[in-house]
Amino acid sequence: MLPISHRGQLMPASPIRKLVPYAEAAKKRGVTVYHLNIGQPDIETPKAALDAVRHFDFKVLEYSHSAGNESYRRKLAGYYQRLGIDVDYSQIIITTGGSEAILFGFMSCLDAGDEVIIPEPFYANYNGFAVAANVTVRPLTSYIENGFALPPAAEFEKLITARTRGIVICNPNNPTGYLYSREEMETLKQIVMKHNLYLFADEAYRDFCYSGEHVGAMGLKGAEQHVIMVDTISKRYSACGGRIGALVTRNQAVLDTVLKFAQARLSPPSFAQILGEAAIDLPPDYFNATKAEYLRRRDTLVRRLNAMPGVYCPNPGGAFYAIARLPVDDAEAFCQWLLEKFSFNKQTLMLAPAGGFYGTKGLGQHEVRLAYVLNVAALEKAMDCLERALDEYPGKEITINDNITAASAIQP
Amino acid sequence: MLPISHRGQLMPASPIRKLVPYAEAAKKRGVTVYHLNIGQPDIETPKAALDAVRHFDFKVLEYSHSAGNESYRRKLAGYYQRLGIDVDYSQIIITTGGSEAILFGFMSCLDAGDEVIIPEPFYANYNGFAVAANVTVRPLTSYIENGFALPPAAEFEKLITARTRGIVICNPNNPTGYLYSREEMETLKQIVMKHNLYLFADEAYRDFCYSGEHVGAMGLKGAEQHVIMVDTISKRYSACGGRIGALVTRNQAVLDTVLKFAQARLSPPSFAQILGEAAIDLPPDYFNATKAEYLRRRDTLVRRLNAMPGVYCPNPGGAFYAIARLPVDDAEAFCQWLLEKFSFNKQTLMLAPAGGFYGTKGLGQHEVRLAYVLNVAALEKAMDCLERALDEYPGKEITINDNITAASAIQP
Repeated sequence: MLPISHRGQLMPASPIRKLVPYAEAAKKRGVTVYHLNIGQPDIETPKAALDAVRHFDFKVLEYSHSAGNESYRRKLAGYYQRLGIDVDYSQIIITTGGSEAILFGFMSCLDAGDEVIIPEPFYANYNGFAVAANVTVRPLTSYIENGFALPPAAEFEKLITARTRGIVICNPNNPTGYLYSREEMETLKQIVMKHNLYLFADEAYRDFCYSGEHVGAMGLKGAEQHVIMVDTISKRYSACGGRIGALVTRNQAVLDTVLKFAQARLSPPSFAQILGEAAIDLPPDYFNATKAEYLRRRDTLVRRLNAMPGVYCPNPGGAFYAIARLPVDDAEAFCQWLLEKFSFNKQTLMLAPAGGFYGTKGLGQHEVRLAYVLNVAALEKAMDCLERALDEYPGKEITINDNITAASAIQP
Repeated sequence: MLPISHRGQLMPASPIRKLVPYAEAAKKRGVTVYHLNIGQPDIETPKAALDAVRHFDFKVLEYSHSAGNESYRRKLAGYYQRLGIDVDYSQIIITTGGSEAILFGFMSCLDAGDEVIIPEPFYANYNGFAVAANVTVRPLTSYIENGFALPPAAEFEKLITARTRGIVICNPNNPTGYLYSREEMETLKQIVMKHNLYLFADEAYRDFCYSGEHVGAMGLKGAEQHVIMVDTISKRYSACGGRIGALVTRNQAVLDTVLKFAQARLSPPSFAQILGEAAIDLPPDYFNATKAEYLRRRDTLVRRLNAMPGVYCPNPGGAFYAIARLPVDDAEAFCQWLLEKFSFNKQTLMLAPAGGFYGTKGLGQHEVRLAYVLNVAALEKAMDCLERALDEYPGKEITINDNITAASAIQP
């Protein structure tokens, strides 16, 4: 028997995946499943960007530069500059999705046994990249009671050890939708500067902010050497399958090191670099329509959820996710039950149990993540299903949210 | 000062990269540079495959399945079956280039401190993936004197320790072009079965064999659980920029583990999966023309090289690389000199010094790798340049190949 590596065994499976067979079985029974479980937007990829791919004119599909096409990097630098992020194209390395940017960042800055602190709940795949890099994730709990705000600096400092090398944030946040305030970003800056840490800032959802401005990590004055920004075209242009992201930093030693990892894998995908480059020429009002659409969806979702007895959902400031606490004994069992046992007018919905987004075992047991990636009419129907399901579900715990509605109940 | 990770420091830079500025400077001086230094084929990507990408009809560029599109995996399984490789589509995971297949294989099967044995000279980026996975490469020297044949089993066994977990081969080989015989593949099978090792078989160049048949690792009876095949469309269809490869194995535990790494990075690129799927429908004689072209190039290159005084180049059986020993003091200095000081009729050539392909320091000092990715007319001109350059080069060591021409001088 050949051994599987220890890290391969540690590698977490997708927390959503185990529900997939139940969703497939439901569909086979003729039940419509509203997918609020994944961050695959239904928004059309901009036609002009897709057309640029259709009209490529090369005859040999060559490797691009390991750091990405220079023409794309230069245009992307211009895009960032228009957002007030002052970077040169040489400070951008194009990656295969934001995923690879995170992996390269971890690989370049962290060694086996090093630690990163991540406010939880967090994007579950950070665990995967940490395992790949043999890095230990120290989760720092944020709480639904205050909308998943950044935990105070003192809480971060309690987790800092001799092996702590960085903090990872996602802003606006997947899975909570929380948008960090200027004060919170300044707090992060103080911590990383005081303790000489990297700040890995995943800004995949930067373009989707509804309540307040986005305060980007690259704008933190004085922390230039600390900040590594992770970006992607996946959500911005609804181009998830392109697998084009970027790692952006002003830290030259990090850039030099990331480039070596980039060279080892030769180049990022060529076709979607064309798409990414063309998308930068979209009119400045392109995001307005998309944002307006997401805002309608968010308002529908949050209104409907909070109108259900015993349900609590803080209003997310950005991205297209929300976490809701449900009056159920076990969110994972409930999500399975929705697919396996429940239907309403031959319809049901698929949700992501929030437990998979927490690093601390046992947390999120009563919470689900909802991705509002369906149109308002579909969302309304999905909420009709959820309302009815909560009424019928045998494992209800109606008292679970009693302490939340008192708005003052803000925890550390 | 923020620390760069130890592995980031260990990560090798591209061995070819340091010559790039000299090539660029030569071009600025108006000198034509024949690029024999990189494996970027000039062969056109099949039009039918490119057209399939042009004619995609989706409106949302969605994530594909983490293991790749099922339709593509099924067709790829059919392609392998026609080659005599009996695999089911469920034993194929589509990766972002062959690069990611190697990384996922290492990550899934090897832990930090584990060792793999690789016959050297070897594809330099194996070092990069090993560093990323904190794995130690034990190079086992193969020799130009016998055309870089597989070292004997006893030589492998001398390197096997308690931490040895696998052997990595590339067949046909990059950088040597060597095509392993059936007997050599059987030797490898005996070693991996006797010592319970994985056999990582990079078969990126399978379709380019000129002297004898390709004996694939997946066909080694009895070693089904040991073999992990790495594949790619990069060279097969001259589609390097697509970044589509595959990891293929019958070992279910490895597949399950690799899938977890694949899920963490969400999906391989969508556009080039379309290309890969369409390419499988190319007529069976598609490779004949390409192979005939490479064969003409190989014959030209090898004939010209061996006709130069003091040069020795074994005849490669596959891929599109050759390693030649040159009568020079230092191949790296010579390659730089070619770009910096030399020109003939306003032309010169760029070669890859072979030292970067050896894991053992000091080896390959008199060798270069030549990629025959240019047409015969360009190759002839490049060889004219090389012949003249060897005549002019001040650091000649004319006796260096005296002992090679005696064909019996087969080492270890």
